[in-house]
Amino acid sequence: KLIALLAGDGIGPEVTGEARRVLDALALDLAFEEAEVGGAAYRAHGHPLPPETVALAQRADAVLFGAVGDPAFDALDRALRPEQAILGLRKALSTFANLRPARGFPGLEEASTLKPEIARAIDLVIVRELNGDVYFGDKGRRTTDAGLREGHDLMRYDEAEVRRIAHVGFRTARTRSGRLCSVDKANVLETSQLWRDVVIEVAADYADVELTHMYVDNAAMQLVRNPAAFDTIVTGNLFGDILSDQASMCVGSIGMLPSASLDADGKGLYEPIHGSAPDIAGQGKANPCAAILSAAMMLRHSLGEAAAADRIEAAVATAIRGGMRTPDLGGTATTRAMGDAVLAAL
Amino acid sequence: KLIALLAGDGIGPEVTGEARRVLDALALDLAFEEAEVGGAAYRAHGHPLPPETVALAQRADAVLFGAVGDPAFDALDRALRPEQAILGLRKALSTFANLRPARGFPGLEEASTLKPEIARAIDLVIVRELNGDVYFGDKGRRTTDAGLREGHDLMRYDEAEVRRIAHVGFRTARTRSGRLCSVDKANVLETSQLWRDVVIEVAADYADVELTHMYVDNAAMQLVRNPAAFDTIVTGNLFGDILSDQASMCVGSIGMLPSASLDADGKGLYEPIHGSAPDIAGQGKANPCAAILSAAMMLRHSLGEAAAADRIEAAVATAIRGGMRTPDLGGTATTRAMGDAVLAAL
Ligand SMILES: CC(C)[C@H](C(=O)O)[C@@H](O)C(=O)O
Ligand SMILES: CC(C)[C@H](C(=O)O)[C@@H](O)C(=O)O
Repeated sequence: KLIALLAGDGIGPEVTGEARRVLDALALDLAFEEAEVGGAAYRAHGHPLPPETVALAQRADAVLFGAVGDPAFDALDRALRPEQAILGLRKALSTFANLRPARGFPGLEEASTLKPEIARAIDLVIVRELNGDVYFGDKGRRTTDAGLREGHDLMRYDEAEVRRIAHVGFRTARTRSGRLCSVDKANVLETSQLWRDVVIEVAADYADVELTHMYVDNAAMQLVRNPAAFDTIVTGNLFGDILSDQASMCVGSIGMLPSASLDADGKGLYEPIHGSAPDIAGQGKANPCAAILSAAMMLRHSLGEAAAADRIEAAVATAIRGGMRTPDLGGTATTRAMGDAVLAAL
Repeated sequence: KLIALLAGDGIGPEVTGEARRVLDALALDLAFEEAEVGGAAYRAHGHPLPPETVALAQRADAVLFGAVGDPAFDALDRALRPEQAILGLRKALSTFANLRPARGFPGLEEASTLKPEIARAIDLVIVRELNGDVYFGDKGRRTTDAGLREGHDLMRYDEAEVRRIAHVGFRTARTRSGRLCSVDKANVLETSQLWRDVVIEVAADYADVELTHMYVDNAAMQLVRNPAAFDTIVTGNLFGDILSDQASMCVGSIGMLPSASLDADGKGLYEPIHGSAPDIAGQGKANPCAAILSAAMMLRHSLGEAAAADRIEAAVATAIRGGMRTPDLGGTATTRAMGDAVLAAL
């Protein structure tokens, strides 16, 4: 199996480096090919997502992604900024289903600003649509008839887009508690009304799943008030972006959380939910666990290696239980030391 | 001075009733006129925002608003649903600047799910644009050429809309700590890039205010990680909707928080940030403090009665210090009992 390793910017190379070491140690039949992406690719090729990188990602059986984003390019046009690389990849790979689990790690509850008994009870997954919404609708700048500068972005979904992500939501809920909460803003948005209609239609196929609906502002509130009440959340691209970052911070350990972005055939792109953290890049301070756990998700969802995935997840839990703490977790362990601890526990 | 009293649905009448009693007790020269709005108006007139209600609101010096929303009308077309009343009023009154303060109340930190020392330190205000964005852009449903149902909502801002809310943000920051954080999603949205450009231009008039920019997903994260780091936040309609609900729940006492929606001349609509809470309507369980504090904001911002506003706010603080607790605060006091306690402390 071929893995495209796209390390990207900032701490991306450090954390994917540790994930690679863990994968190598498992002695599975994996080949790795690297390519540049983000600011690194812009420096080398004048574009954050060069065609060779897209070609490799499409050819590979799965993509292991680090992070993109570099303040050195803040002044560039949006289309050339490092972040465009991840948006372009999601679209080129048709990875429309983004799974973002947020679960407390035993022993890490103190890292959360939530009371420990609240943080400890969090165990949810956000299923975020990743190929549509206001991210990919018609967008631009123009001057109005009155001579004013204007910016616009079209939010839109069609029923096919909603249906396929709704199915992922229901199937995910079924493997968990059987409760699915669909988040929208149907009291204001037509897009959300279509979303809600279609989710209700799809529900007919899943009589065993209990479906509820919540407005996004209320969801942001309930994620603080009673996060344990959520199990599976399905929502659009924009709301999912906001709520998943919020949920991960409620858990208290953003450096621990992986994500999977899947296409219709189970091929996927795997990345930590944290960003490129340019302020600590290259200093060995980054927590590689999110990248290592993303590699585990890759083994499970795209490579049919569930047992190996379990081993990695257990090894990370052991390292944490053993007291290993990178700075984001209040400790002083280096990126490499955390990687070593996971390797030792494999 | 004429106050339009729009009590609305659910707990709206109960909580505005207590606010009215407090205002009456101050013996200011205020006249009140009531009108129906939301589900109540739909029942009486077949529309959630009848023309007489709009006319009264426009004629009045200020509007004291309760809440709208009634699940009995969930099946209605969006344009006829109770929530349309508040959207329509905001537009009819050109109240483009929504101020949502979120500050812990001494003695109420335990109500928050955040650790007490985190909740106690929260003291921020969100300045939310209220007349534009994806709320009011072109929206609709159609069938695509491929025969698929589609929904769309246009997100848009022009520079004049951004400029006037940016000025409110800077002026607000100036009366506080002098720190303004502008929240957008400029790495994805053209609307946000225009927003950021214009906010930076306006900053030239406020050399004494320190301006920072943050992406909305990061802001949702930082509101959990370190809410005390925020002072004044300025953002668009949709992001402000989500972040202000989240921030208020971080404080832990959504039943305590008021809001003001102001036009260019200081005329305004004042409402609790909580909703109509149909599940507890008519049972005397609602906390009237948010409505009472909204009345105080009205006195300060629209009626030139700052001293009276101070008196109300002090009286609410006294009632809370005295141990008065409605069910949302973990107690059993009735709506009326809380109102009585505030009146007694005036
Ligand atoms: C980098 C950015 C474009 C991206 C997004 O908004 O999707 C990020 O926030 C994420 O959630 O993966
Ligand atoms: C009721 C709804 C339309 C409204 C909004 O989204 O603005 C509410 O959530 C609010 O924040 O006042």
